[in-house]
Amino acid sequence: MPTSGLMQPFGVDVDLIEGIMTAPDRIAATKASDMRGYYQDAAALERLIESGDPLLYEVFEKRLPLEPGHVMFCISKLQPGRVGQECFMTKGHYHETAGAAELYLCLRGRGYLLMKTAEGQSALEPMYRGRLVYVPPYWAHRSINSGQEPLISLCAYPADAGHNYGEIETEGFPQRVLLRGGGEVIVSQAAG
Amino acid sequence: MPTSGLMQPFGVDVDLIEGIMTAPDRIAATKASDMRGYYQDAAALERLIESGDPLLYEVFEKRLPLEPGHVMFCISKLQPGRVGQECFMTKGHYHETAGAAELYLCLRGRGYLLMKTAEGQSALEPMYRGRLVYVPPYWAHRSINSGQEPLISLCAYPADAGHNYGEIETEGFPQRVLLRGGGEVIVSQAAG
Repeated sequence: MPTSGLMQPFGVDVDLIEGIMTAPDRIAATKASDMRGYYQDAAALERLIESGDPLLYEVFEKRLPLEPGHVMFCISKLQPGRVGQECFMTKGHYHETAGAAELYLCLRGRGYLLMKTAEGQSALEPMYRGRLVYVPPYWAHRSINSGQEPLISLCAYPADAGHNYGEIETEGFPQRVLLRGGGEVIVSQAAG
Repeated sequence: MPTSGLMQPFGVDVDLIEGIMTAPDRIAATKASDMRGYYQDAAALERLIESGDPLLYEVFEKRLPLEPGHVMFCISKLQPGRVGQECFMTKGHYHETAGAAELYLCLRGRGYLLMKTAEGQSALEPMYRGRLVYVPPYWAHRSINSGQEPLISLCAYPADAGHNYGEIETEGFPQRVLLRGGGEVIVSQAAG
């Protein structure tokens, strides 16, 4: 037991229909201009940036010690839309502590959790309200919104997990999720 | 990274209105006769046991490795009712790895999360649909149902946390939550 004072319990309200956390301590926002290099259609991304550089996704957190034993939780909110034909998505990350798992409980929207390992495995799990996806240790993970409303998940992971974005920016994931004009979802093998 | 094969991602469906997990791997059930020694009114508990020994609470889990880095999740379902005037409650536990935190997201019902530390601190957090309570490292915790329907929470904690019930059976918690006939909730300092 630590000799200093213990952390006090606390509560936070989560709207389980809208997927909103009341009074987060921290909001991390990612705009279109933060996503250069991630989408297949770079010209379409530049047009999106020029048209007002919209907010693509946000993470809402409470402040917790980033220490072993704590369980970090956050709301991930990914807007609907496309860059060219490719669905809006998060950058995706491994954990710095690669052996740290993560839970994603989808509260709203439709989409996918795309995962891969450094050994070349990949997995694509559908996300919809009430779907809880377990991201095991050593799996990088990216959210993809293939629906028409925000894709919102409540996430939980070891607070000392950290984030490792480095290799994904250059290597990407082995699949891309495209949305054709008629609403048809296509999972393509990534060509680059 | 482990040299053996990595665990594969998986998903599970959670009914976010009813608080039901589809196809759990394991259900741990606690009946009235498992709760001897916990309630203030031992005679009332014996009458409840004699009247059919009802199921008081259940925990629904998926099977995960109980290893560092994994995040265990479960549904906790506590029935409504009283033993004498005292609301139905779980035994409560510390974690064996005492420095492991836990998240409780209430999906249904009304009640409390009662917490204490070995140093004599205590805390009582209200639980209701959408309330997420953070149980920090080193805090024992017990669910209490003061409502009229099941109190259901989705919980997440480090998979290597373990459970330590030992001292709570003899020492209890510093408060008891009573429900008077008219529906009035009373938090009493535990006399024993």
